[in-house]
Amino acid sequence: MNAIDLRKRLALGAVAGLAVVGAVVGAGAYAAPETEAEPIDAVAVAEVQEEGVRGANALTHEAALAVLDAAQDKAAELGERVTVAVVDRNGNTIALVKGDGAGPQSPDSAEAKAYTAVSWGQATSDLAGAAEGEGATVADIPGTLFLAGGVPVVYDGAPIAGVGVGGAPSGDIDEEIALAGLAALADLEG
Amino acid sequence: MNAIDLRKRLALGAVAGLAVVGAVVGAGAYAAPETEAEPIDAVAVAEVQEEGVRGANALTHEAALAVLDAAQDKAAELGERVTVAVVDRNGNTIALVKGDGAGPQSPDSAEAKAYTAVSWGQATSDLAGAAEGEGATVADIPGTLFLAGGVPVVYDGAPIAGVGVGGAPSGDIDEEIALAGLAALADLEG
Amino acid sequence: MNAIDLRKRLALGAVAGLAVVGAVVGAGAYAAPETEAEPIDAVAVAEVQEEGVRGANALTHEAALAVLDAAQDKAAELGERVTVAVVDRNGNTIALVKGDGAGPQSPDSAEAKAYTAVSWGQATSDLAGAAEGEGATVADIPGTLFLAGGVPVVYDGAPIAGVGVGGAPSGDIDEEIALAGLAALADLEG
Amino acid sequence: MNAIDLRKRLALGAVAGLAVVGAVVGAGAYAAPETEAEPIDAVAVAEVQEEGVRGANALTHEAALAVLDAAQDKAAELGERVTVAVVDRNGNTIALVKGDGAGPQSPDSAEAKAYTAVSWGQATSDLAGAAEGEGATVADIPGTLFLAGGVPVVYDGAPIAGVGVGGAPSGDIDEEIALAGLAALADLEG
Amino acid sequence: MNAIDLRKRLALGAVAGLAVVGAVVGAGAYAAPETEAEPIDAVAVAEVQEEGVRGANALTHEAALAVLDAAQDKAAELGERVTVAVVDRNGNTIALVKGDGAGPQSPDSAEAKAYTAVSWGQATSDLAGAAEGEGATVADIPGTLFLAGGVPVVYDGAPIAGVGVGGAPSGDIDEEIALAGLAALADLEG
Amino acid sequence: MNAIDLRKRLALGAVAGLAVVGAVVGAGAYAAPETEAEPIDAVAVAEVQEEGVRGANALTHEAALAVLDAAQDKAAELGERVTVAVVDRNGNTIALVKGDGAGPQSPDSAEAKAYTAVSWGQATSDLAGAAEGEGATVADIPGTLFLAGGVPVVYDGAPIAGVGVGGAPSGDIDEEIALAGLAALADLEG
Amino acid sequence: MNAIDLRKRLALGAVAGLAVVGAVVGAGAYAAPETEAEPIDAVAVAEVQEEGVRGANALTHEAALAVLDAAQDKAAELGERVTVAVVDRNGNTIALVKGDGAGPQSPDSAEAKAYTAVSWGQATSDLAGAAEGEGATVADIPGTLFLAGGVPVVYDGAPIAGVGVGGAPSGDIDEEIALAGLAALADLEG
Amino acid sequence: MNAIDLRKRLALGAVAGLAVVGAVVGAGAYAAPETEAEPIDAVAVAEVQEEGVRGANALTHEAALAVLDAAQDKAAELGERVTVAVVDRNGNTIALVKGDGAGPQSPDSAEAKAYTAVSWGQATSDLAGAAEGEGATVADIPGTLFLAGGVPVVYDGAPIAGVGVGGAPSGDIDEEIALAGLAALADLEG
Repeated sequence: MNAIDLRKRLALGAVAGLAVVGAVVGAGAYAAPETEAEPIDAVAVAEVQEEGVRGANALTHEAALAVLDAAQDKAAELGERVTVAVVDRNGNTIALVKGDGAGPQSPDSAEAKAYTAVSWGQATSDLAGAAEGEGATVADIPGTLFLAGGVPVVYDGAPIAGVGVGGAPSGDIDEEIALAGLAALADLEG
Repeated sequence: MNAIDLRKRLALGAVAGLAVVGAVVGAGAYAAPETEAEPIDAVAVAEVQEEGVRGANALTHEAALAVLDAAQDKAAELGERVTVAVVDRNGNTIALVKGDGAGPQSPDSAEAKAYTAVSWGQATSDLAGAAEGEGATVADIPGTLFLAGGVPVVYDGAPIAGVGVGGAPSGDIDEEIALAGLAALADLEG
Repeated sequence: MNAIDLRKRLALGAVAGLAVVGAVVGAGAYAAPETEAEPIDAVAVAEVQEEGVRGANALTHEAALAVLDAAQDKAAELGERVTVAVVDRNGNTIALVKGDGAGPQSPDSAEAKAYTAVSWGQATSDLAGAAEGEGATVADIPGTLFLAGGVPVVYDGAPIAGVGVGGAPSGDIDEEIALAGLAALADLEG
Repeated sequence: MNAIDLRKRLALGAVAGLAVVGAVVGAGAYAAPETEAEPIDAVAVAEVQEEGVRGANALTHEAALAVLDAAQDKAAELGERVTVAVVDRNGNTIALVKGDGAGPQSPDSAEAKAYTAVSWGQATSDLAGAAEGEGATVADIPGTLFLAGGVPVVYDGAPIAGVGVGGAPSGDIDEEIALAGLAALADLEG
Repeated sequence: MNAIDLRKRLALGAVAGLAVVGAVVGAGAYAAPETEAEPIDAVAVAEVQEEGVRGANALTHEAALAVLDAAQDKAAELGERVTVAVVDRNGNTIALVKGDGAGPQSPDSAEAKAYTAVSWGQATSDLAGAAEGEGATVADIPGTLFLAGGVPVVYDGAPIAGVGVGGAPSGDIDEEIALAGLAALADLEG
Repeated sequence: MNAIDLRKRLALGAVAGLAVVGAVVGAGAYAAPETEAEPIDAVAVAEVQEEGVRGANALTHEAALAVLDAAQDKAAELGERVTVAVVDRNGNTIALVKGDGAGPQSPDSAEAKAYTAVSWGQATSDLAGAAEGEGATVADIPGTLFLAGGVPVVYDGAPIAGVGVGGAPSGDIDEEIALAGLAALADLEG
Repeated sequence: MNAIDLRKRLALGAVAGLAVVGAVVGAGAYAAPETEAEPIDAVAVAEVQEEGVRGANALTHEAALAVLDAAQDKAAELGERVTVAVVDRNGNTIALVKGDGAGPQSPDSAEAKAYTAVSWGQATSDLAGAAEGEGATVADIPGTLFLAGGVPVVYDGAPIAGVGVGGAPSGDIDEEIALAGLAALADLEG
Repeated sequence: MNAIDLRKRLALGAVAGLAVVGAVVGAGAYAAPETEAEPIDAVAVAEVQEEGVRGANALTHEAALAVLDAAQDKAAELGERVTVAVVDRNGNTIALVKGDGAGPQSPDSAEAKAYTAVSWGQATSDLAGAAEGEGATVADIPGTLFLAGGVPVVYDGAPIAGVGVGGAPSGDIDEEIALAGLAALADLEG
């Protein structure tokens, strides 16, 4: 064991309460094609204690795909061309599909509506009033869009995702399609 | 009940398995100062079924602040001026502090190292090899930085956060400071 | 008819070969909730002659969703956590899904690989050589990523879309998942 | 045939309905100067079945250039200095020319008007009402500009491109120039 | 001494009033792991004369961390989920913590409020009027947000930092939390 | 005094050690033309205690202008067309001038060199080695440029600014011009 | 004349050598549709003296369009699908056309090559060597691309524009097309 | 002469009216330190014919520096802390200085005002009306700011540059400082 490794392990030596693990095999560690050799003197990875961890809920990717499917089905039924987006509680897009012939503005619109719905835990149509009035409003916060068509996905009383739809001739229709996507979350097992 | 509400409720009427809730009071719904009136015909918010939800673990903000404190203490002990960043599993910065006199490049450097460590679940010093070799490497992925100074925070076998340090004269020192921050996660209760 | 309309129609009066149409009802024209009245003096919309139009092929959104589904099934089979992206021939993402637990870098990686594959009409693994050598290479073009995991979708001899996968421990696995997504395009009717 | 190729072909082996092609010669595959050797074990490129493909119409680049020419001729006739932009249905600029002495804001203005016109399939002057009213409007969607001077190019009842002009002293003049550009689409053969 | 060094020293030879120093050891000069050799012919670094220098005051990083702690304590007391940001007089974020469960929009909101407060040296709630009225207002300046929740940190009559809070249901609550953070600056020694 | 003010003052009531001041007149508080009335119930602004404040040194804007002048004089003497930039210790450009006929890339180049020099407290020509070697280097940190032509401005042993020059046919000439700019800092009073 | 106007004119009163003009009618001053009234108390616009002005040469937009046409003709002759861009000496794109079926990466590639050619006044193929070698090179300057396909337009011994082509299978072909575009500049009058 | 050169010269062989020149020595061609050898087979650079060239006027960098100096003198006289920016007719910043203690928002504000003034050839205070009224206005064009403090520099009846000031307590004061900067253009020779 060389000097650098020693320093690393000494630093961790002070971490009495941490269980030192050898590898994070389940975590999808990347190995570039050129570097097939095993790392020998890797930095020991420590497990954090339970006290520093909180649980959070998230929509599964299967559920997100079900939302996309159901929303596009509703759009087809209505003859509309839309983009559907699902955003997680951290504001990152986790699923998106742009319908055939949907306008170029529809992805940005769908993502921003989903982002807004998950940020405030309400449908964007119900939040529209917050964007009204003289002077600055919440609509000035980057990434938001207070047009109808965004709805939150709620679990255990908290928003865990947002669904946004853009591209239909009116926000009301966008919202109707988003709600159809939301409804798919009841059919996941049946 | 007007026509628009009716449509909304009909749309949700098909969602047999969803428990309709009246409000998301715990979710921090925003009310702008001008809109103090209760929304009357709000879109019914539906709770998603358990089947569509997965649990995820995240570092608490108290733990993240403890990392910042401990890392800056170590930096002071070593006489270094650094920025320390904590990034969650979704790549978003959840905590950051720029030390007195740290260089302007240190925040970007710290965040990118933390991002890289949580993305691959390994210390950036161990990942350095993946950025070597002719042609394209993982270092071409936006937002990454394969310099020593980034370490993952692991819980239950999976990376849940990354800690990154930038600004010291060498990546080895940055890493030593990051590991000191990591070590704080063992002292959270005691 | 007022003066402004007259000017508009005169301008179009010179367009002998164009069939003037009254409305673009099929095109998803947006009407904001506040503007429900019919536009009366709308700018006449002219149909372009056939000579200025070229046909192009694109992946349907249903096909794109099928790619996402099949790729995630393969990832589950392999125990990998990845993001899958589909990009059209114009470089715009038309479908994306981030798998449960996939790293934060995986969406950017997947989109860039798909973009690269559709740009050059080849799998990124076959293009890797183009990013090698001293000095500037095609890898310097913004938005590209020459790592394995991107494959083109070809129709009638031309690339019409790209599929990209990011997040697995190696590019070879990413590519295997992308190819499984591609294979779904044969099962669209059966 | 080595192991990696085998895996690739097996993956595609399941794709019964796909015609495996050897090369995409017509697609403009890039070969960097340094990599003149033939790729030997290239990933087999599969043709997607007809079911997954939809046709789309686009303006030819010759037609787009004709629009630029005619619009600048009209601008010269009127003594105006403008930028003219043509945007495709995916929102990407496919042709642009900044007139001599046109202001620095005119390219952004022209592109945003063209983008808006092709997104909603209407002239921006007719869409102006959609950007009015209290609170959020479609004008909050990124990349849009609801000022006169953008007109859609329509074929077979759907918008396939947008033409935008910026830089004249009023939006009415910008629109007049854009319509002159549109009129050129009737003279493509004569 | 070679020719290049000579030129450098001659250039500095004209700088009679500058004290030439050999190294900037305290400045955190970076040495990459691969380049451990001493630079031999380094460019002489000159000290600027006092006449060209002005003093400026800044919040220490310890004070910034104290603000984060106190603000999150107040948020916990109120049951709110917020992000707290501290921005220096140059507009750069020097400390940030996102509370558990705070919305994705809260970091941007907190940073922009802090930026606005330090820019004008006033609480954003007192600046709200400057963002009202017809036509352009200061709210059009990039990076600003004129919603309650941002307060300046003042020393010697000038703003030296800004504290911003975002994520609570109303700006008034955000401001209350920001003020609690500000109050921590009185307890730094006791 | 209304309820909101009361809450504000109570919050500050706990801040025993802070001197409450009435206004920040010296801080350049902005008043939009429409809002000429005095704010009546303004949030009390508190002065931070000395313990939370650190002094920092910065180049005066007069010194920065002197650097621009002297560097352009040297460029004229050498017949070169360059941009000269001065960046403060926080990485923000505080002064810049693009010489007549200098290339479009010269401002970005000058700013990045100045940024790099102030970040590491060394001339970029001396830092060149840090950007060499296989794999990732400090050159991967955003905003940096390790080409000759950037020099730090040092006071009291620490870098307080960076001067960067771009546009000459070689980095050596850029550096010579930057050093001439630096030399001007000795002539500020005489 | 009111007080504000008086101040303005007094400020200009000190500008003895400037000819005060009433309007800048030739400059394309914008008048929004709503503001048709004449501005009454406009700020007097002063003409700068000759001493502060330098002449510069630029490509006319007609010449730029001729380059686009000729380059696309050559591309058609060669059976290639490319984007052609013309960039002025300030680095701004003044003309661009994306050929039918050209890849999504081709506009960025064409613009960056044109930018590089006009920045250094040489063909990018001749500049390729400047992007080689260990460590940092000019290829690290943002917006540049050192691949063949960019050529400068020179007048009176100085570069006044750049032409860039992207999308062909090799940079040599891109350059051949760019040179054909350049050749069109000889046929402007005949 | 090898085949590649031959092709290049043949391509130019068709350019009868172009004078082929050997080098662009006055254009600041960049030679990286590593590539000191003469390029042998360089692409012949052709001079464009006069017909394709138009003259344009620009502010000299000395005049721009004089504007910065005079504006900061006026700001000092008034006791204000501001940033002054000069933007050319192409919208690029050619000179900027941030005054001691000016707010972090002042550079963006100054540049945007200068950009707006040179775009429309009028003082931003006179343009304020164009940003008023319901719905979209010119203030929606990116990069613009319709607050007082921006003035155009006019020569020969056309705007050739813009001067913008930001950071004073009101736009009127910003404008007064900008006009003082403008006045300096009369003292360039005396």
